[in-house]
Amino acid sequence: MSNAIKYSVILGNLGNTCDRFLSSGYKDVLDKTEMIAQAASIEGVTGIELVGTWDITRDNAAQVKKQLQQHKLQCSSIIVDHFGQKRWGRGALASADAGIRAEAVEETRQMIDVAVELDCDFLNLWPGQDGYDYALCTDYLVDRHRMIDSIAACAEYAAAKKVRIGLEYKMKEPRTHSYLARCADTLLVANQVGANVGVTIDTGHAFLAYENVGESIAMLKMFGDKLFHMHFNDNYSSWDDDMIVGSVRLVEYVEMLYWLRRTEYKGWYSMDQYPYREDGKKAVESSVMFLRQLEKVLNRIGMDEIEKLINRRDPVATCAFIRNELIRS
Amino acid sequence: MSNAIKYSVILGNLGNTCDRFLSSGYKDVLDKTEMIAQAASIEGVTGIELVGTWDITRDNAAQVKKQLQQHKLQCSSIIVDHFGQKRWGRGALASADAGIRAEAVEETRQMIDVAVELDCDFLNLWPGQDGYDYALCTDYLVDRHRMIDSIAACAEYAAAKKVRIGLEYKMKEPRTHSYLARCADTLLVANQVGANVGVTIDTGHAFLAYENVGESIAMLKMFGDKLFHMHFNDNYSSWDDDMIVGSVRLVEYVEMLYWLRRTEYKGWYSMDQYPYREDGKKAVESSVMFLRQLEKVLNRIGMDEIEKLINRRDPVATCAFIRNELIRS
Amino acid sequence: MSNAIKYSVILGNLGNTCDRFLSSGYKDVLDKTEMIAQAASIEGVTGIELVGTWDITRDNAAQVKKQLQQHKLQCSSIIVDHFGQKRWGRGALASADAGIRAEAVEETRQMIDVAVELDCDFLNLWPGQDGYDYALCTDYLVDRHRMIDSIAACAEYAAAKKVRIGLEYKMKEPRTHSYLARCADTLLVANQVGANVGVTIDTGHAFLAYENVGESIAMLKMFGDKLFHMHFNDNYSSWDDDMIVGSVRLVEYVEMLYWLRRTEYKGWYSMDQYPYREDGKKAVESSVMFLRQLEKVLNRIGMDEIEKLINRRDPVATCAFIRNELIRS
Amino acid sequence: MSNAIKYSVILGNLGNTCDRFLSSGYKDVLDKTEMIAQAASIEGVTGIELVGTWDITRDNAAQVKKQLQQHKLQCSSIIVDHFGQKRWGRGALASADAGIRAEAVEETRQMIDVAVELDCDFLNLWPGQDGYDYALCTDYLVDRHRMIDSIAACAEYAAAKKVRIGLEYKMKEPRTHSYLARCADTLLVANQVGANVGVTIDTGHAFLAYENVGESIAMLKMFGDKLFHMHFNDNYSSWDDDMIVGSVRLVEYVEMLYWLRRTEYKGWYSMDQYPYREDGKKAVESSVMFLRQLEKVLNRIGMDEIEKLINRRDPVATCAFIRNELIRS
Repeated sequence: MSNAIKYSVILGNLGNTCDRFLSSGYKDVLDKTEMIAQAASIEGVTGIELVGTWDITRDNAAQVKKQLQQHKLQCSSIIVDHFGQKRWGRGALASADAGIRAEAVEETRQMIDVAVELDCDFLNLWPGQDGYDYALCTDYLVDRHRMIDSIAACAEYAAAKKVRIGLEYKMKEPRTHSYLARCADTLLVANQVGANVGVTIDTGHAFLAYENVGESIAMLKMFGDKLFHMHFNDNYSSWDDDMIVGSVRLVEYVEMLYWLRRTEYKGWYSMDQYPYREDGKKAVESSVMFLRQLEKVLNRIGMDEIEKLINRRDPVATCAFIRNELIRS
Repeated sequence: MSNAIKYSVILGNLGNTCDRFLSSGYKDVLDKTEMIAQAASIEGVTGIELVGTWDITRDNAAQVKKQLQQHKLQCSSIIVDHFGQKRWGRGALASADAGIRAEAVEETRQMIDVAVELDCDFLNLWPGQDGYDYALCTDYLVDRHRMIDSIAACAEYAAAKKVRIGLEYKMKEPRTHSYLARCADTLLVANQVGANVGVTIDTGHAFLAYENVGESIAMLKMFGDKLFHMHFNDNYSSWDDDMIVGSVRLVEYVEMLYWLRRTEYKGWYSMDQYPYREDGKKAVESSVMFLRQLEKVLNRIGMDEIEKLINRRDPVATCAFIRNELIRS
Repeated sequence: MSNAIKYSVILGNLGNTCDRFLSSGYKDVLDKTEMIAQAASIEGVTGIELVGTWDITRDNAAQVKKQLQQHKLQCSSIIVDHFGQKRWGRGALASADAGIRAEAVEETRQMIDVAVELDCDFLNLWPGQDGYDYALCTDYLVDRHRMIDSIAACAEYAAAKKVRIGLEYKMKEPRTHSYLARCADTLLVANQVGANVGVTIDTGHAFLAYENVGESIAMLKMFGDKLFHMHFNDNYSSWDDDMIVGSVRLVEYVEMLYWLRRTEYKGWYSMDQYPYREDGKKAVESSVMFLRQLEKVLNRIGMDEIEKLINRRDPVATCAFIRNELIRS
Repeated sequence: MSNAIKYSVILGNLGNTCDRFLSSGYKDVLDKTEMIAQAASIEGVTGIELVGTWDITRDNAAQVKKQLQQHKLQCSSIIVDHFGQKRWGRGALASADAGIRAEAVEETRQMIDVAVELDCDFLNLWPGQDGYDYALCTDYLVDRHRMIDSIAACAEYAAAKKVRIGLEYKMKEPRTHSYLARCADTLLVANQVGANVGVTIDTGHAFLAYENVGESIAMLKMFGDKLFHMHFNDNYSSWDDDMIVGSVRLVEYVEMLYWLRRTEYKGWYSMDQYPYREDGKKAVESSVMFLRQLEKVLNRIGMDEIEKLINRRDPVATCAFIRNELIRS
């Protein structure tokens, strides 16, 4: 069963990463060709997720397509750049500036075209700059209507091209408060704008919001089968540390993999990390290896046994399961 | 305009409060008659919110009604007891035990009858025990369906009696994870079950979930005009400390009072605190005095000026506003 | 090497536990004799930690001693009750009331005598009520001097009886701010008052303060070899959930067990949980089984290999170690 | 009394600021000469705090000195760059690489010389890269000894030049865990290395660690009079948002200004913000205006009245004080 799982990595994870104190980045800038080759060499990875501007533009689309084909890699998703340019600094899809909103929609449309060119039928929207930093500075009603209108315009264009859109939520960063903040509020927006719009869960974003990802997956199943995409990383619960999967948590990943199977999630398992000081390729590879190992664990145990376990509703039994089935002696 | 605001207090706030280390409570147990008299003596308070079992039962309803009438107090709301008895310990409305679920619905129906008897048209549901503590112990899909079915049953009964229900969300405590956890997921449930079901915002619960209450109010307005009730208290952001309103925050309260006016919220402003070591009556009174003072501030400034301010979308202008209009020199 | 480890449980963990919403508790009250028998039946447990007032008083000391002897159990520690009586509600060792401070010291002295009677040479001080709830209500300098004076008085009495004292820190609860809040500030106090005073780490309290317990252990080693006692439990990082060890975390426990060995910690490994809705004995037993399993893992791997690993300072290598040595396939 | 307060700003606050998503920054890069002129134009500001590499180097020291003199500005502090270059990426003062540690000390020595050249007697050390990201990757004992040795070497050089050093703590970012994480652990290090080494409190870093700054100030007074420097900014408690002072909090600032006066703090009040999307000069100016307004409030009320208030230890009285003395009607 785990054979059917499609693993993907975000290309930029393999390259240089920066923060606000070291804006030139912690490592050397890698050549994109090299990064694609590295991604292709990770066992089990068959997809690449591309970030607009950083990884993919209209100009390099043909070239990137060729490189992906050479390595037999699919483009799993394109993340539209609504966060990495000065013009988006005060908002993109919900910007107070109608011109910027139009540009943000246009940017999306272009990336939909690029996706189609790359034989990719999924687009990830993470409107990281759409939100606010301070209280008493924002008209939330006006902004939310603008946001929905912009997303609806994107969704309409995407529908015509048979492209699905996943809205990726994150409670904060780069704004202190984002509009697509948590699973349920993003679901409310998705349900408002069209059948081809769903939700992307980034595990770290969910942990940051004190969500239990297994429960979030179940909620999206229940209210419209709206889980469209998954980003994987780990963290210490209070910030989007974007760490290697399994470096902090174990039980929650086992639970979420169970729920992904049980809800018959068909999308990609895409790695989304910021290995500031680590070897990028190896850091991403570690995450894939961890998830594949847990899939073996699930195969060994069987879905029925886990269902029996959760129906016991007994933490003592679950702890015995952890000791006996998950951890070595 | 602020004259129209209806202030209420939760009766139990005036009495003894306990925690897990001092289960007999920090203060002496007060007589209910005395507590009602104290509540009535707080300037501006015209309503009392009653907690099932603790404050109100079918047996004492007639007597409580009489006492409220003597003091010209309305019953603003009844909070059904789905949390304070051993039988609810592992869940009430979403319990795995069908018998317990039936009891939880029946308890609600009885309180609806009591509400009607007390001329009160609003019931608050805070299903604090409905959730889970550990990962890998729970079938979230099954539980959520049960939860919705139970709430729907309550809502149907309430509708027949012309009673509205507010679902009060809280991310955690007493469970490590609650099913009605945040504003948007609770709205999803409310929208599923009936027009007479909406959401109760407890300000401290919202702070705990890193929500900006002004934004949550706007969201409830937008997706169905679903804000039915307000509980007020303050905290240090990471736990439901249930402190005196205004002891920690200022700007966020000003913003939320603005949004309550702007969205034409018609419900009660009810104080919900745990003054463990303080004089209960005075602690609650402090909160009312703080909110009434901020209403005066809003009256002085005017809604238009605040709208202008938030449309500037300039934190520097907002900070000038804070210094000039909110804080003394 | 792991054979030398002394496991202990806090007696009350096996009984009924309450919270502020269900003050009568989630379970039935167990007979103390029964609880001691249950504790004795947990494989590997040779010690019992007793809570003043709740478990042990001057009056029942002789009887408890006899019961412990019958079960060949040692008293690992007595936790002085500075939190569970109304008189401590606004502070005990640092109370503004000199009479209360004297009582808090006297209570400690009595428990030192009881400890001696029970052949126990360690006392745990958790001054949970010493702190404050609101800003601008407290003279921190005065309070801290009072706190140190009280602890010094306790330490002097304890020294004469050859009893050591561990100061247990916790950032908050039941106060919003405690005086002994984190590892380092508690170390500062310990170093101020005497050689027989050190620090107790409760793992959950450390997680709550965003401490990495392995690092806290190293810090206490470095600044005076001051780790005197360990309390074990797990949580979701933002509150003292007092859960079964290993239900949430794995890697951090492996790391801390490594550091306990490396720093040659000689004290007890005592379980401190609140199994509100679980079978108390089984919940505590689960924690002991988890820790004993991890000790086997450490024995298998060897201290040298872990030292080599941490000297690689490479998260990718550590993640390979997690997959290969800690987790099953 | 407030006239004696020395306000300062970190120069870079006035310029362009970036984050990991928008590494080129949200605004245009400002000319340093222009930034100094802007800083000088803020009423009440008489000092400039300079960041190594970014603002000040050995090469531009003479020129900067001249510009400061032209504007009658003092250099309040130099923050040594131990965070903004690739070579510090895995640590500086505690690096596993002896060569890097030597460079980090040498960098400090050079900045001490520059400070002397600028007639500045204070140096701020914020070793942001000294810490770790993952568990089970680090030898905390070895690292902490290295850290102390490096700081001791810096302190020795500084003592000879009559320069004092403030160690600035921050729980996390850019590492998930920093070695100088909280007030007390930094105090332990300061006390270990020399009389000319103390602690810098950044208010936002303290909020992030759930510290009450008033209490931290009192603690530093008590254990050696070790508060050497203050950085001011505001945030939403769970991250170093570096916002305008007073945009979120009020009461905690009043309390900390009280404690700064009471403990006779003589150092600078330096603004440290990241006004990503705001006008830099105006954002910093807002903070200064807020603090100066609160000083007026303190002057009006008087230290004795506040001492009386805190000695009442009554949150109800404090809330009355907030309503009557701090907030307008």
